[in-house]
Amino acid sequence: MTAEQARDIWVEAPPGHAVVAIEDGRIYGTAKMGPNKPGPGSHISTASFMVAGEARGKGVGTALCRYALDWAREHGYAGMQFNAVVETNVTAVEIYKRLGFTVIGTVPGAFEHPVQGRVGLHIMFCPL
Amino acid sequence: MTAEQARDIWVEAPPGHAVVAIEDGRIYGTAKMGPNKPGPGSHISTASFMVAGEARGKGVGTALCRYALDWAREHGYAGMQFNAVVETNVTAVEIYKRLGFTVIGTVPGAFEHPVQGRVGLHIMFCPL
Repeated sequence: MTAEQARDIWVEAPPGHAVVAIEDGRIYGTAKMGPNKPGPGSHISTASFMVAGEARGKGVGTALCRYALDWAREHGYAGMQFNAVVETNVTAVEIYKRLGFTVIGTVPGAFEHPVQGRVGLHIMFCPL
Repeated sequence: MTAEQARDIWVEAPPGHAVVAIEDGRIYGTAKMGPNKPGPGSHISTASFMVAGEARGKGVGTALCRYALDWAREHGYAGMQFNAVVETNVTAVEIYKRLGFTVIGTVPGAFEHPVQGRVGLHIMFCPL
């Protein structure tokens, strides 16, 4: 993927919003957030996160998710929904649960994991 | 919404696919279908439907949903996922259940209904 393709996917037009997590001038992670659906679903937000491999376990994901929840609360969203959390990504699932998310349901085998094969995708929700 | 705006939203580029339900030269409904997500989620399909008000109760929705499931099966998808089924749309929910879908979970209050206020959105799934 080129930088331009990645930017098109990640950086959405307002009201969408994207941020990076920086320490000592280095980018260790990024989050994007915005309405989960248009029109009659636009009072629910969603967010996505990426954390650099070398920054794992340092709280970057937690900081980004906290930021996204604060942003959504400030912008009047009634909740935040994650549409596709890989169920075997237990680190992410635990962070989300600690910050107030619950698993609404799991779509069986919906993610083709490069190592684990087909695993489920959680839909997760946090009321705001 | 102009016809052109509607077309842009409804008619997706291949592998996406859109059809209409016609009787005596009149269009009574339409369906769109395709991969639910890109990349490692692209083996799961999704579909959306619209049925004209005057055609309700005539089996148009059932015919369109059957078509979508057949199309997805023929194209090798492992399942079909609906991301946002309004829980108070019991006609649609019953059709989907009869055709093999189950409710994976319900996001509370995620749809702003013009009459009923905020109601839940079901995530539904049918293995193929």
